[in-house]
This record gives sequence, C-alpha cells and structure tokens, in this order.
Amino acid sequence: MRIALDAMGSDNHPGPELEAVVEASKRWGDPILLIGPEDLLKSSLANFQYDPKLIKVIHAPEVLQMTDSPARTAKGKAESSMAVGMDLLKSAEADAFVTAGNTGGAMANALFRLGRIRGVKRPALGTVFPVKDGQAILIDIGANADCRPIYLQQFAVLGAVYAEIILNKPDPRVGLVSNGEEAGKGNLLVKDTYPLLEKSGLNFVGNLEPKELFAGEADVAVTDGFTGNILVKTSEAVAKLLTNLIRTEITSSPISSVGGLLSRSAFRRVGVTLDPAEYGAAPLLGVQGLVFIGHGRSDTKALINAIRIAREAVEGDLMKALETAITSRL
Amino acid sequence: MRIALDAMGSDNHPGPELEAVVEASKRWGDPILLIGPEDLLKSSLANFQYDPKLIKVIHAPEVLQMTDSPARTAKGKAESSMAVGMDLLKSAEADAFVTAGNTGGAMANALFRLGRIRGVKRPALGTVFPVKDGQAILIDIGANADCRPIYLQQFAVLGAVYAEIILNKPDPRVGLVSNGEEAGKGNLLVKDTYPLLEKSGLNFVGNLEPKELFAGEADVAVTDGFTGNILVKTSEAVAKLLTNLIRTEITSSPISSVGGLLSRSAFRRVGVTLDPAEYGAAPLLGVQGLVFIGHGRSDTKALINAIRIAREAVEGDLMKALETAITSRL
Repeated sequence: MRIALDAMGSDNHPGPELEAVVEASKRWGDPILLIGPEDLLKSSLANFQYDPKLIKVIHAPEVLQMTDSPARTAKGKAESSMAVGMDLLKSAEADAFVTAGNTGGAMANALFRLGRIRGVKRPALGTVFPVKDGQAILIDIGANADCRPIYLQQFAVLGAVYAEIILNKPDPRVGLVSNGEEAGKGNLLVKDTYPLLEKSGLNFVGNLEPKELFAGEADVAVTDGFTGNILVKTSEAVAKLLTNLIRTEITSSPISSVGGLLSRSAFRRVGVTLDPAEYGAAPLLGVQGLVFIGHGRSDTKALINAIRIAREAVEGDLMKALETAITSRL
Repeated sequence: MRIALDAMGSDNHPGPELEAVVEASKRWGDPILLIGPEDLLKSSLANFQYDPKLIKVIHAPEVLQMTDSPARTAKGKAESSMAVGMDLLKSAEADAFVTAGNTGGAMANALFRLGRIRGVKRPALGTVFPVKDGQAILIDIGANADCRPIYLQQFAVLGAVYAEIILNKPDPRVGLVSNGEEAGKGNLLVKDTYPLLEKSGLNFVGNLEPKELFAGEADVAVTDGFTGNILVKTSEAVAKLLTNLIRTEITSSPISSVGGLLSRSAFRRVGVTLDPAEYGAAPLLGVQGLVFIGHGRSDTKALINAIRIAREAVEGDLMKALETAITSRL
C-alpha cells in the first residue's frame, strides 16, 4: 500500500509532515510518498533516522497558498504538492492522498484532476466527530454551501458507506440535521429531502436536532455544506470558550487552583476525547480517489491519525464500496 | 408599568411562575398580571406572602399544549393564557408579555392577535448569549426557517435596536453569520444579503464565523431561522457534552475527585456565565407588542430575569424605537 502525503499542507509545514512520515513508515512498514520541493524535503529528512526505502520524495516545486483562488490553483498550479498528489492517485501510483492544505484548493484539485464517481452529482466533505459513547460522521461540512435534495440523498449514501467501513457500523443509522426532530420540521431543503431518505433503503432514523446528534442517535448526520460548516465551527468555538472559561476561573483563586491541579489528568482525558487531532482528517467523498483533508492546524499526531485512516480506507476498499453504493442505491 | 406573565407556560407551570411574580412584585413594586385558570392560581397564591394589590390574576381557562398546532391554537384557543396575554398587549392593558410556553404557539398567537409592525415582512426571534467579555444578540433563531435577503436585512435593523436599548451598545456592530469571514463566502442567501447590509447604514462588520461570534466581534449576529436554531442548539449540546465529560472524568479517580471538589466554585461560576437562565427570554421582534419567550425549562430565576428584561424594554420604549428604525432604515 502506498499513501501519499502533501508535505506542504499544514500551517507549520513541513515539520509535522516530516515527523509523521518517519513515524508512519516505522509503525506500518509500508512505503510513503512525500510530496513537495525535493531539495527542501531531502535536506530536512537528513535530520531523521528512517529507512530510505520506505520514504520516497516526489518533487513538487509549487506550494498552494491560503490566498490562492481554489479554481485557479487547480488549473494554473499543476506543480503544486496538492496537484501532484491528485495526479499520483489518478495514475494509481498512490492508493490514497492526505493533505492538510487549503480545503477549497484540495476540492478544486480533486474535481479537476480526479473527477467525480460516475453518478455522483456533488462530492462532499465528511468529518468524524465524537458523540456520546462513540463517533459519527457529519456530511457535508463545507464542499457545497447550496444544495438540492438529491445531493443530500447522495451524501447520505456516501456517508453510510464510510460509517460502515471506517467506523465499523453495520447498517448505520442515518439522520437528517434539522431544527426539530418531528417529521415536517425543517427548512424547505430538509422537508424535500426527508421523503427521499425515507424511501432510500438506508436505515433512516428521521430528523436529528444537534442534541440527538451529540447524544449518538445516528451514525451518519446529513446536512448541506453551509449548515454543516456552521455546526462544526460552533462546536469548536463553544468547546474553546468553555475550556478557557474553566481555566480562567480555576486559576482565579488559590483553592480552586489546587483543585485544578489535582483534576488536571481528568481535563487531559476530556481533551483527548474532543481533540480533532484524534480523528485525523476529513474524507472528501464522491471523487475518483481516496482524498483526506486535514485541518491546517494539524500536528504530527493528527497527520499520523490521518495516514492511519487513509490506510483503513485502502484496506477496506472504500473506493469500490462507494462506487457500488452509488450505482445500486441511486 | 404592567408586565403580564403567562402562568401556564413553563414545563413545571405554574410553580416557577408563581414564585417569579411574588418575587418580582416585591423587587420592583409594580403590579403584575398573572394569566391562567383563576381558581388554580388564586388557591396557589394563598400559599405565598404577597401584596394583593400588586398581583392581579387574569382568568384564562385554556392551556396551550406542546402538541397543539401553532396556527390552530392561535385561532381556535382564544381563551388560552397565551392568547389572553397577547390580547392584553393589544388592548394596552399590559406593556409587555412574558411566556415560557410553546414557541410556535407564541409566534402564531402574536402574529394573529398583534400583527406585524408596519413595514416588517417577517418577525424574528432573537436570543442574547454570552460571548467573550460580554453579550450579543443572535437573530433569527427559529421563527423563519426559509428566508430572503430582505428579511435578514430587517432582522439586522431589529436586532441593532435591541442591542442598543437592552444591551446598551451604541451603534452596535452587525455581522452576518457565514461559513467564512471573507466577503464573497457563504451560501446564496448570505451572498445576496451582504450588499444589502453594506449599504444599510448599519455598523456592518462583514461576515462572522462562529469563532468570531463567540469572540465577541459583533453585537448583533444575523442569520436565517434554520441556521440560527442549529447554532444555538449546537452550543447547548456541546456545552452539555463537555460538562458531562468533565464531571465523569473528575469523579473517576479519588485524586481528581478531590480536585473537582476544590474547584467546584470555579465550575459554578462558569455555569453562571453560560446559564441560559441568566439571559431570561428571547424577544420576538417585529410584532406590534413586546413579547418575550422563555425556554420551556425556565425556572423561577429565568422567569424573574425575563420580567427584568421586559421591564427594561418598556422603560427604554423598545417598541417605539423598533417602529422608528423600521420606518427610517427601510
């Protein structure tokens, strides 16, 4: 198995990427393709101990910037690490591609260079997140700000395959994110999507309010990319606000400071449960190749987790399962 | 000043309502109208010490149920405490009406019995919530699942007046909730609303991602009722998940238990900062009267806070300011 990693993706590239490939090559013993400016990567790798047979540097002189327009970079920057990674997937020289670069750029490059799975109208970005006693996938979290019911139906199919293969949930429960749990609640998009999911053959459990979603009442939560993005970013913002508030309050008096010190390991365990780095990267589902997009803030641990998930996707033949599901379900 | 309170609104009615009116009558010394079944309320009030000149029971034999269809109750249940409360506003026997009942029922009753402020296309529900170093109002959080740009522009005007009068923010900063902070980001609704807000004469600060919203970068956050509802409910769900996780982890070992005990007051202070009860009730803006809708879970404290805010709205002549703003801005 060959996983390709964009060396120039994360905010602190290529440090975390270098550490991640070195560690991943030791952990799994499979060759990894590291994509970026050859001179830079080779000289940086010289600082590490690793098996040179397992890390292959693929030259890509250009770097995608956050300010680059996604559409323009896909066509104009053919030698960016992002573009080269997609091309390696296309030519089957890599089995999966992991990048912590600009999400818009990754999507544009994937669409332009890989294309969609036959029958898929809009690829979507999923994210795995923690719920009570487990994990669920939320899809779409940002690829499509404006959606039609048929797109959401397809997101449900793609998300269900992912939940089955990567989250090990047979016959996953699919819910539709809404502002009320009763059937008939929702905006027009939700109301029109509901009957499509009811007759989709999926294990549809109806509308999901955020509280049900976090209570783990579905394995797949389907929504449009605007709402999904707001939902994910609100979760992150509230978790951060709350953590900061607790930290400020705890250090504000000597007694609660001691208390904070004594309960520190408990806080650390909560942090691990909620840490996005634990979940690695967001799968871009519906394109002709396995693409995983990590957060720009990804550190070494997050990238290793992303590589781990990409490996599981290759091992479970996620690509074939997605294609089959789209053909048979729609 | 006369505030009217729906005695049958909260999940545990009328207990919290009775305690709230008794306390409010002592605190402010103004008469309060308590609406519900007369016999029940009078016999229950007999258990309290209060000045009978300050609490006037208004008979309303019917009670709105959560299962009642909002539209039907507005027209069909003319003697519900909700309907009677709105009628008291209409006849100017009350200056503001507070209810912790069914939100849909309250909106339907307000629209049917009070009507809209002249020029307002859609009334909206706002909510005040905690941000870093202060408070902000988010509008709409559920009255209108599907919106047009002009509705959002009006929500901005209504929310800005509220922020100015109730949150004491002169020339409040208005932001548009979006999936990216750069101009041009968003779904079609956001993209079409942006230019309207730019030329609205309001202090428009552009798009707001949830992290900016919670960082306090705007005083008024404008969104459609579907997105706003998901945003509020996600905040509540994440705060609850995080609090439960911390509690579970802290009690899982003897050392962190002691730590949790010592830092308990810090947790309590964080709880107060985030407690919806601190913020009382959501204003329904754009109807011909001051209506405040509390959470079904409202307790005595939340209801007293709701009465306090309703009083501030009357004192600041919020109604007139809203009418003037709608006429002059649009």
